[in-house]
Amino acid sequence: MRTMKIVVCSTLLTCMSAFGISDMALVKKAQEAGLKPIPKSELEILKLVDDPKNPITSSKVELGKKLYFEPRLSKSGLISCNTCHNLAMGGVDGVGAAIGHKWTPNPHHLNSPTVYNSVLNDVQFWDGRDPHLEAQAQGPIQAGPEMAAPKELVEKRVTSMPGYIKEFKETYGQDVKITFKLIADTIAVFERTLVTPSRFDDFLTNNPKALTKNEKKGLQTFIDKGCVACHTGVGLGGTMQPFEIHAKYAYAKGDFKGNASGMVKTPTLRNIEETAPYFHNGNVWSLTTAVKEMGSVQLGVKINDKEAQQITTFLKSLTGDKPKISYPQLPVITNKTPRPDMN
Amino acid sequence: MRTMKIVVCSTLLTCMSAFGISDMALVKKAQEAGLKPIPKSELEILKLVDDPKNPITSSKVELGKKLYFEPRLSKSGLISCNTCHNLAMGGVDGVGAAIGHKWTPNPHHLNSPTVYNSVLNDVQFWDGRDPHLEAQAQGPIQAGPEMAAPKELVEKRVTSMPGYIKEFKETYGQDVKITFKLIADTIAVFERTLVTPSRFDDFLTNNPKALTKNEKKGLQTFIDKGCVACHTGVGLGGTMQPFEIHAKYAYAKGDFKGNASGMVKTPTLRNIEETAPYFHNGNVWSLTTAVKEMGSVQLGVKINDKEAQQITTFLKSLTGDKPKISYPQLPVITNKTPRPDMN
Repeated sequence: MRTMKIVVCSTLLTCMSAFGISDMALVKKAQEAGLKPIPKSELEILKLVDDPKNPITSSKVELGKKLYFEPRLSKSGLISCNTCHNLAMGGVDGVGAAIGHKWTPNPHHLNSPTVYNSVLNDVQFWDGRDPHLEAQAQGPIQAGPEMAAPKELVEKRVTSMPGYIKEFKETYGQDVKITFKLIADTIAVFERTLVTPSRFDDFLTNNPKALTKNEKKGLQTFIDKGCVACHTGVGLGGTMQPFEIHAKYAYAKGDFKGNASGMVKTPTLRNIEETAPYFHNGNVWSLTTAVKEMGSVQLGVKINDKEAQQITTFLKSLTGDKPKISYPQLPVITNKTPRPDMN
Repeated sequence: MRTMKIVVCSTLLTCMSAFGISDMALVKKAQEAGLKPIPKSELEILKLVDDPKNPITSSKVELGKKLYFEPRLSKSGLISCNTCHNLAMGGVDGVGAAIGHKWTPNPHHLNSPTVYNSVLNDVQFWDGRDPHLEAQAQGPIQAGPEMAAPKELVEKRVTSMPGYIKEFKETYGQDVKITFKLIADTIAVFERTLVTPSRFDDFLTNNPKALTKNEKKGLQTFIDKGCVACHTGVGLGGTMQPFEIHAKYAYAKGDFKGNASGMVKTPTLRNIEETAPYFHNGNVWSLTTAVKEMGSVQLGVKINDKEAQQITTFLKSLTGDKPKISYPQLPVITNKTPRPDMN
């Protein structure tokens, strides 16, 4: 009988939670708040993340993965995309301001955003200056305080290694011209595959048992407090919003105040448990502190300790399953490969 | 008929090479020169690399892999074992002097040796100061110009993460005390598994077709010139030898002159194609140049361009199959985790 009850309950989605709202009603409430799941099927995910201008192929993904882990794309030969967007650590570096070439901290004290689910963002970079991962991938490689490699150096390094030439030909055809743009485009294809379905997605696609009671309560609080104003859609973030709407950051650091229009990209909340420290300036380590700070800075509401704890409990249900990555073997250099430059 | 001939030939090992010595005779010559293969069977490899004092278990290997890729073992939170001993690039960093905490080059301009097959070395470190990988793993984590993390910091970081506590308990039992030593010991177990069987091993275990004619010619030259005096055994290196026996390095850099007895660890030649730049000081990028330099510095013989090219051709047959590494997911920090420190 007990099994029967559970089956009926989960089928009809009429179980009442401990907090007075049925699971079905909570799913509906979340949907109405604009929250959207990562789909369950591989095909649906592919439709969500693919771009007809640079379509995903398994060959591009494999080559893009190599380039993503390739430290020789940097001037020093020591820093890869994965250095700051570490796939072993929620797609981030776990430090406040990103550290790049010559141990240089980001001059605006900007924190490295996660690469996981970045394809779900409407825009890339904290100032949202480009919508495309293809463009994003070009930025840090060239930036002086990051990988510090001019386009020409990147092209020379890659085209000096027969192993890369072979793979580019296999991927793009014999006549391929290996440009800096193509290298970045290929990295972007790999990055598109880095989506992480979580228990919350399972819940949103009508499995009410995917979340615990406390997580459901946290979801309600998350919606009721208004967090969904910015953290919505399939990425729970990723759109531009005004910077410091109701108050200044108590945890200020760096000179970033948004783009020329005073707007900032809302970070995704997916895997937020794994991506401390928080905010554009990486200046807050506690997730509950970050939740409260967002209430006062962006929503103009007080989120008390209990509510912040509830929301944090919900947010941890957004920790998703990571794609399995087989660590690559990178091509061998030749006499033509430009040497590392530490200066 | 043709097939038949090949079968007979490879079975009896009596094919004459183009250079006047039978394959069988060359295998024998190599064996007599002290060259030994990585065995073919997993069990034989295990016997070769295991240490009863710290026996390999799959649980230790998996945990050791996580710790090997763990940048939070460093003071900054940015440098892992894999930073300087990158498993994607022949187990090295591909730069001259190793670069560590605060972008500090190794003060003696020492080059990062490969981690692949390091278990086959008699001794570790360029000055051979310890025979055990367990001890080696403790060095760079603490060294100021490398990962710069005091033991206590490493222990606090690891024990602050429930994900690590759980895995240590699963690996060593509920009563485990997670010490710095145990962390290093676990890394060492992972490192023991990083052996890379090559075509040369196949040749040495009586498959004469595993090497090309030119590689066999190169092997003969390698033996005849006397390279096997130091580059022998299963590691083709890994023992202590006098530093600068017959001449000074033409490619000098740094102040390293061997240990107190004027001895230096001979590096393994396995995967040498992938581990430029060469020598203790990482000051030579061309393998043929390195071969010639070793002739004059260590053997007191002239190795001409043609011979150096032959030897280089042989050396490339030592590029081995790397173990497949699934990139790990590392545990999440807590409020107790000591923060990264860039200074």
